[in-house]
This record gives sequence, C-alpha cells and structure tokens, in this order.
Amino acid sequence: MAKEKKLVESITSRDEDFAQWYTDVVREAELCDYSGVKGCLNYLPNGYAIWENIQADLDKRFKDTGVQNVYLPVLIPETLLQKEKDHIEGFAPEVAWVTKGGEENLAERFCIRPTSETLFCDVWSKTVQSHRDLPKVWNQWCSVLRWEKTTRPFLRSREFLWQEGHTIHATYEEAEQRTIQMLNVYKDFVEQDLAIPLVTGRKTESEKFAGAQDTYTIEALMHDGKALQSGTSHFFGNGFADAYGIQYLDKNNELHSVYETSWGLSTRIIGAIIMVHGDDSGLVLPPRIAPIQTRIIPVAQHKEGVLEAANDLMDKLKAAGYRVAIDDSEKSPGWKFSEQEMLGIPTRVEIGPKDIEKNQAVIVRRDTREKIFVSLDEIDSKLQEVLDDVQKSLYEKAKAFLEDHISSATTMDEMNEKFNTKKGFIKAMWCGEEACEEEIKAQTGGATSRCIPEEQEQLADTCICCGKPAKHMVYWGKAY
Amino acid sequence: MAKEKKLVESITSRDEDFAQWYTDVVREAELCDYSGVKGCLNYLPNGYAIWENIQADLDKRFKDTGVQNVYLPVLIPETLLQKEKDHIEGFAPEVAWVTKGGEENLAERFCIRPTSETLFCDVWSKTVQSHRDLPKVWNQWCSVLRWEKTTRPFLRSREFLWQEGHTIHATYEEAEQRTIQMLNVYKDFVEQDLAIPLVTGRKTESEKFAGAQDTYTIEALMHDGKALQSGTSHFFGNGFADAYGIQYLDKNNELHSVYETSWGLSTRIIGAIIMVHGDDSGLVLPPRIAPIQTRIIPVAQHKEGVLEAANDLMDKLKAAGYRVAIDDSEKSPGWKFSEQEMLGIPTRVEIGPKDIEKNQAVIVRRDTREKIFVSLDEIDSKLQEVLDDVQKSLYEKAKAFLEDHISSATTMDEMNEKFNTKKGFIKAMWCGEEACEEEIKAQTGGATSRCIPEEQEQLADTCICCGKPAKHMVYWGKAY
Repeated sequence: MAKEKKLVESITSRDEDFAQWYTDVVREAELCDYSGVKGCLNYLPNGYAIWENIQADLDKRFKDTGVQNVYLPVLIPETLLQKEKDHIEGFAPEVAWVTKGGEENLAERFCIRPTSETLFCDVWSKTVQSHRDLPKVWNQWCSVLRWEKTTRPFLRSREFLWQEGHTIHATYEEAEQRTIQMLNVYKDFVEQDLAIPLVTGRKTESEKFAGAQDTYTIEALMHDGKALQSGTSHFFGNGFADAYGIQYLDKNNELHSVYETSWGLSTRIIGAIIMVHGDDSGLVLPPRIAPIQTRIIPVAQHKEGVLEAANDLMDKLKAAGYRVAIDDSEKSPGWKFSEQEMLGIPTRVEIGPKDIEKNQAVIVRRDTREKIFVSLDEIDSKLQEVLDDVQKSLYEKAKAFLEDHISSATTMDEMNEKFNTKKGFIKAMWCGEEACEEEIKAQTGGATSRCIPEEQEQLADTCICCGKPAKHMVYWGKAY
Repeated sequence: MAKEKKLVESITSRDEDFAQWYTDVVREAELCDYSGVKGCLNYLPNGYAIWENIQADLDKRFKDTGVQNVYLPVLIPETLLQKEKDHIEGFAPEVAWVTKGGEENLAERFCIRPTSETLFCDVWSKTVQSHRDLPKVWNQWCSVLRWEKTTRPFLRSREFLWQEGHTIHATYEEAEQRTIQMLNVYKDFVEQDLAIPLVTGRKTESEKFAGAQDTYTIEALMHDGKALQSGTSHFFGNGFADAYGIQYLDKNNELHSVYETSWGLSTRIIGAIIMVHGDDSGLVLPPRIAPIQTRIIPVAQHKEGVLEAANDLMDKLKAAGYRVAIDDSEKSPGWKFSEQEMLGIPTRVEIGPKDIEKNQAVIVRRDTREKIFVSLDEIDSKLQEVLDDVQKSLYEKAKAFLEDHISSATTMDEMNEKFNTKKGFIKAMWCGEEACEEEIKAQTGGATSRCIPEEQEQLADTCICCGKPAKHMVYWGKAY
C-alpha cells in the first residue's frame, strides 16, 4: 500500500494549487518535459501519441473540406518577413535569427518561422496567374518557434507543434466563408472529439492576429475558471495579397488581388484536455483521442489461467478494433489501478480468478469509477458503449461547468465582484474602444475581451466601462 | 492537338539528358520547387501527398515492431552537440547557427538539428536509471537542416523531411539486432511498397555515419546507372552512451552503459521513385503509395449521361476504398491522358457513350499503356487486380534492370571499362584500406564503395586495387 499512496501523493490537489496540479500531472503522466534549450519541450511518447490522434482526426476533417497538405521551409529570409507591415511588427520581437550557415556568415539573416503566411504568399506570388489556379486550400503540420519569455508545458513554449492552413480565393465572400468554415471545423472537432465545450466569436481589434482583417476564435474554459484560446481562423482580405503581389486574371482578362485566410490549432490544445477533464488522480482522456482506450489489469495474475485469460481478452479486443494494452508487470493491482488512472486511460478491465469462473470481467470507468460487470461473450460490443458514454459524460460535465461559469454584468462593480467570486466568462456590453478594454483589464486585474459572439444579446444600451453607446456584447475572461 | 504536343515536349527525353529529364518531371508534375531560401524546397501538394503515404505505411511498420513516436526540439545547444567527438567533426561544417532570439543576443549559440542523436542522448541521460527503463525504441518525423553547397530537388537539399529512429538497449546483441531489424523494415518497405529492388549491406569505415560503429545501408539503382543511398541504420555500440553518460543499474545493482542505434529514411526516396520508375511521359507511381490510384476520364463528356456515369463510377470506386479522382475539366481527352500520365497516376479509367452502351469502361495502365475492357459490374474488383499487377510489374522490371546492371571485375582495367560501358554496380574484392577506396574513386572518375553485402563471394583472393590479400567483396558504384 505504501507505493500506491506515494503515487497519488505525487500529484498536488487540483483545488489546492491548480498550477502545481497541472505541472504534476504533465510530469507524472510523462507527457513532456523541458529540454536543454530553455522553453523548448521534449514531447514524450505519452504526450506525442495524443497529438498523433489529434492530427489524424483533424487532418481527416480538413481533407473532407478539400484541404491539401504541403510543407514549406523552416527558414524565412528577413526581407520576405518584412513585406507586410503589421505582420512584421507583431512577430519581429519574438523570432530566432540564423546568422551563420556552415562556415559562412550569411549576407541576409533568416528567421525560424513563427508562422508561415509570408512563405505561402511567396509561393503563390510566383505561381498563381489565372482564376483557374484558384482557390488554393493548403495546410502544413510543422513546428514553429516564438521567443517567449515565460513558458509553461503545452500552454506556452518557444517551439510548439501545430497545423497552419493557408488559403487564397478569387472573391471576398469565398474567403470569408472559408474562414468561418474552418472555425466550425475546429469547433466540431474540439467539442465532439475532445469533449470540450466552447464559446466562439470574433476577436476585437486589439486581440487580432498581426495582419488580419478579422480573427475568429474558439475559447475553452479551464477548471480554474480561466479561458484558453484554443484555435483561431483569420480573414486577411487582400492585405497580404497586395503586399506580396498575388494577383490573378479573371475570365474577362482583368487583374485582381486574391483574398486570403489562415487558421491554426496547436499542441496547446493538449493543455486544454488536461485542464478541462483532469482530476486529483491525474489525467482523464476522452476515448476518441486516447492513445490507449482500455488497459487490461489481471488480478491475482500468479494464479493459474489468469494471465492467459487476460491476454486472450486483449487479443479479442484488439481484433475488435480497440486501442488496448495490458499491464502484466509485477506491480500490485492497486498500484496498476493508480497508474492507469494517472495516465487518464478512459477505462480499465479487471479480470481475476473469480471473474474467469463466472465468464466475466469488470470494466471500470476512469471518469466516474463506476464498475460494470460484463460477460466475456459481450465485452467487445459493451466496451464501445461504455467508451461512448464516457465521451458523452465528459462533454456534458464540462458543458455544465461552462454554463455555470458564464454570467453577465452591466456595471464594473458587478463585473469585478463576479470575476473575484465565480470566475469564468462574463458577458458585458462594450463601446468598441480599445481604451475601455485596457481600463477593464486594469480594473479587473487582467480580464481581456475573449470574443464577440455571433449571437448577440442586448444586456444594456451602454458600454460597461465608459457609459457611451454600446456596439457589441463581448465575452470577457482572464486567460492563459 | 497543339496543347498535347506541348505537354509532352515539356519533358526532355530520359535517354537524351537524364538530369534535365529529372528536373522536368519534378517541375511538370508539380512535386516541389525551390523556395526563396537557397537549397530549401517547397513540398507542393502532389509531392507531399507521396510523402504522406510513405509516412503512413512506414509508420505502421515501425509501430508493429514496438516503436513509439516522440518530438524533440529543432534547436541543439552547441555544447550538447560537441560531446561526441566524431559526431561533431562530421556535422559542425554543415549546420546553421541561431545566434539571436528576439531582441536578445544568445550567450550560447544553437544549431538547427542536422540529426538528433545528441538530443535523444540528452533526454536519456537524465531519465534512464534502471534496466526496467530499457529498451527505449523512439522515432520522430521531422525536418532537418544541413548547409549543403550543391542541391537537387529531393536528392540533396538543405532542409529535408525524414524520420529518425533512436533506440537504447541493455545489451550489445539486442542493439545490434535492432539495427538489422530496422534495415530489414526499410528493405521490405522499399521493395514491397515502392517497388524498388535493393542491394543491402554494411558501409566501409570511410562511408560510415559520423560516430557510428557500423552503418548498414539500402542502395537502389537509378535508371541512369547511378546508385542512390536510400536509407541507413546505425549501430553505435556505447560510444554515445559514454559521451553523454547514459547508464543503467542491472538486476544485480551493477552500473552499465547502454547500447544505441539510429536509423533514418528521408524524402530523398521520392527521388528514387522518380528515377527508377519514370519514363519519357513523366512520373510512374507504384499503386501502393500513389496519392491517386486511378483517374476517371469521361470521353465526349458533353454527351448526355456521360458525366453522370463517370461520377457514379467514381462514387462506386471510392466506396470500394480506392483513391480515385475525376477529370471533368474542359480540356480535351488527349490532354487529360497526357496529364494523368505525367502525374504518374498508375491507371486511368476511360468511359464514353459507347462504353456506357456496353455497360463497360476501359482501364488503361500507366506503365504498359495496356487497355483493359471491364464490365461496370466487375470493375471494383477488377481494378484491384490491375493495380496489384502494376505494382508487381514495376518491381519486376526494376529488378531485371538491377540484375542486368550488376557485374563483377577482378582488375582495375575491367572495372573501368565496365563503369564506362554498362554502368550500375560492380562487385570487386577489397583489402579493407581506405587508400584503395580513394585510388578506385580517382581511377574510375568517382566510384565509391556502396556496401559490403552479407552474402560474400570469393571473386578473387586479392584486392582489385593494390593486390594485397582481399578482406571483403564490395559493391562499387557511382552515386548521387
């Protein structure tokens, strides 16, 4: 029993110190650790396998909408980065510069891509000529580097993994539709596959991506009441096209600039999975993206026939298409249970001599710890039902939490009080001025505009901060 | 007809100028092009889709042998790179250096990874303690950067995509077995999925990877008679483990160094696919990794019912699991045929009014141009037979070419004459001295030792170059 106790004790209680709990879970579940380069992560097998499943699911959704994958260089020449004024202003302070190649000092320095709009524009400016070349709907899976000062595993690191989609279109409307379409792809993916409910909408001017005309966002709520921007989709109009000279001839032989979008989702989302679903026993993974969906744990495995029955069961479940593993190590069953729980494996299947006698096994849910006794004849269909139910329950629980943590305010006092007591998102009216965003941030100790949702409510006629006529209802929150 | 002529004319004849033919095919099939950063490629949709299929197939083979995927940083601190003497000597001249991060001049410079042995060693030196932590069998899919002076699409570029597997083991034997196991994974994959026959074996001292005790290689023969090193598997003994301090306690509490391997295959293999299978009409892709396995081309598509029948056929073939597309553009059928051939799509299916009348379609093989008339009722099973046969034929044709271009020599005159007339691999005896390798290279105008095959033949008792007693039979060749 000493060992089991130690395993659980190695994780700080979530309500006691959320930040420490997060760090403990990342470490104990061996998802990632820091490398010798400050702020750069080693994505270890347990963490990277989650990302692989995210990639597979999301990539399929992309391709269903006509996306083609490409890969453009890791390096961007400084002159190329500088062509779009807002973009370079946003990114120049946080890029890493290559100044030497082999023995040679470079005439022009290159930065390691912090994002690749400039590279995609460069390709298209050289290759797109006619309306027949449009649209281009491209995406790449890669790593990017931003020289952040403070870093946290998954949430903010200098190098992170992501996908960045970039598209160009003949018309404003088509590009705008693609921006919204990809926002909805993210929303469906995150809600359905990651079981994370979202608030979505448009960013305010001050929170937009550098160079974008509009930025749309999906925002998730972590268990500590803080928001996490979890994916963004940008509409550029033809700002980049004009800066980089991407033009096409239409059917009447007239020259036009293209309209552009980009959209990205990163390994940051793994942080959201941890902070939305995790508990004091560790990680809780949604079955659809869990690298292992069930771990078989033989009980009294030294007894005759137990290991054999457990392995038979594994073969059966594997053949049925489950992602399944067995823990037939020398550790005690209690220790194995704790470990499976810490890793967030959505179910375990316990099987011991008494179960074998009764031709049964016990499915134990990670989220509720409910024990479900199942006949071995039915387990391959029953397990899917349980996994589906875990997926559904995780979403519903998180959805209830989100709804319980969205409130509204019409005065600054009310807003402040709610941020201090209830946390979460607060809906409030806003005049549209950046000065009020800054004032709200200062008064609340850090709350920022998260998004302007499509579905607007008229909570009041005036801005919560300055009292001038209100233009938008905004979701406000303290964010990671 | 003018347009069709132009499409074919845009590719130089393969026998006239092989290098130009290669460049033309890469360009016209839109596989990749050079970016604004010298020597760095843009991997375009047609080229990247081939790589995606290679990744999917190879990754599955890796995982079947117990490989876990990870991702380690793109940057390596200079001090870390320097710990293994041979390794740094091999790579230092060809790395790119990051000297500035954001606004800050770095105290220690970082290189962009040219390969990641040093990073894997760093992780393991901090985390491996006991025999229970072994083995580690890790792999990453990423890009690496080497500051090459001369570059060619896929064959040699500054940045390229690859996988690099790294493993550590408790015993010499286990690590050696893993080295050979991964060589065989490459061999099976390249021969079975890419239809490229190989010569395999061990590298000589001078051709080994920097820091390796043994390097094993798979060598393919291009249509111009030149060899292409297509994948390598390295056994490090405990050289790296000692340099980086990776030790474990065995069951008796005694401390030992681990034994290490690494193995890699890159986008270079796409160059091999082009140069082994391609012809004067363009690319020829093996069906197993072709992004599109068949393209449906409606004939007389303006006639009633043709487009409808073609689309029905596409739906049917998609539902049956084929990777299929349709060309229903306004171009002429002849132009469409040329384009499908240039892209190397292994088959096309022609369907016109007369075919519809007869309830049939025509499958045309890319490799032989054979026309196969098939009933629409049977096409979903028949197409698989045709694709299987294309895959088999491509391999057999390449195998016959390879065998026809392996000869042996026992004197330098004979070797020289054969390199000048027949090209390909030449088997010859060697004393084991690097001086003789250099002499052979000088005399033959560039032939190098490709590998020492496991199956040795005693062609002579003495070295072909110096006449001293022979130690090995070696495959020699002029290589990319």
